Amino acid sequence: MNLISDLIQADPYTVEMKAFQDFYPGEYNHCFGCGSKNEHGHQLKSYWDGEQSVAQFKPESFHIAFPGYVYGGLIASLIDCHGSGTAAAAKFRADGHELGSQSLDRYVTASIKVDYLAPTPIDEILDLRGTVLEVGKRKVIVDVTVSAAGKVCAKGHVIAVKMPDHM
Amino acid sequence: MNLISDLIQADPYTVEMKAFQDFYPGEYNHCFGCGSKNEHGHQLKSYWDGEQSVAQFKPESFHIAFPGYVYGGLIASLIDCHGSGTAAAAKFRADGHELGSQSLDRYVTASIKVDYLAPTPIDEILDLRGTVLEVGKRKVIVDVTVSAAGKVCAKGHVIAVKMPDHM
Repeated sequence: MNLISDLIQADPYTVEMKAFQDFYPGEYNHCFGCGSKNEHGHQLKSYWDGEQSVAQFKPESFHIAFPGYVYGGLIASLIDCHGSGTAAAAKFRADGHELGSQSLDRYVTASIKVDYLAPTPIDEILDLRGTVLEVGKRKVIVDVTVSAAGKVCAKGHVIAVKMPDHM
Repeated sequence: MNLISDLIQADPYTVEMKAFQDFYPGEYNHCFGCGSKNEHGHQLKSYWDGEQSVAQFKPESFHIAFPGYVYGGLIASLIDCHGSGTAAAAKFRADGHELGSQSLDRYVTASIKVDYLAPTPIDEILDLRGTVLEVGKRKVIVDVTVSAAGKVCAKGHVIAVKMPDHM
C-alpha cells in the first residue's frame, strides 16, 4: 500500500493536494465521519489517485468488534463518507470543474451496502479505494473497497444523491 | 414510541429483563457498538418485545452529518449491532433455549444494506425495531427499522452468520 503522504511526496505538483472534504461548504463540514469542523469525529479525507479515489484511516484501539479486529460500524461509516465524498468530487469533475475552483455540492447517502469479506485487523492502516460507476444529474454510484495490509476486507456500494436544497 | 424503561415498568415480570448483549461470552463483549466492556463505545442494548426486537439510542450532539441531523455511519452501526444481536438471540430462541440459561453464540455481520429514507434528527431517541426473516443453521437474516419521533428514517437488512470457531 502507498501511503497518501508518500503519494504526495512522489508528485510535487500535488504537494498542496487537498481532500474533497476540504471543499465542502463550511456549514456542511461538520460530519462526524469526515467533517474537518467536527473535533470529536474521524475527519476522514478523500483524494483522487488517478481515476480512483483514496482515503486512509487508522482505527483507534477501542474501535473493535472483539479484541484484535475492527467493528463493522466503523467500516460502514468510512465507506459511507468516502463514497459520498467521491460522489461529490466525481460529479464536480464530470461537470468540468477543477477541484479547488469552487466549493463542492454536498452529496448524501441514499443507500449503502457493505459485504464483510474478512475480519479487519485493528492495528493496520485501512486503505479505502473508490471507483465511480455512474454519474447522473443528481445521483452518483460508487464502489469502495477497504483493505488492510494488502487484503480486501470489505466491499461497499454507495448510492449518493445531491443534498436537496431544503436540507 | 414506548421507551424500553416504560415497557419494563408495564410488565413486572420483565423487571430483570436483560439485553441480548449481556449474554455474549465475556471475550466477545468488547464491541464498540454494543459491548458492555467497551467504555468508549455506544453500548447498544437489544431486547425482545414480543416477536420483534427493540433497542433505543440517544445520539450525542456531535454525531451529526450536518447540524441537526445524525450522520449515516452511526445509523449503520446501530443497525449492524442490533441486527447481529437479534440474530444471535433469534437462533438461540429457535433452538428452544430461554434467554439467560446460557451464553449466546456470537454472530457477525456478513452483509448489511441500509436505505436512508429521511434525515434523522439528532435530538430524538432513536428506536430500532428488528424483524427476523430467516433463521438457518448458521445464517440469520434480520430487517431493522430506525425511527425518530415516530417516523421511520432508515431501513436496514442484515445477514449475520455465526462467528467461525477460528475467530
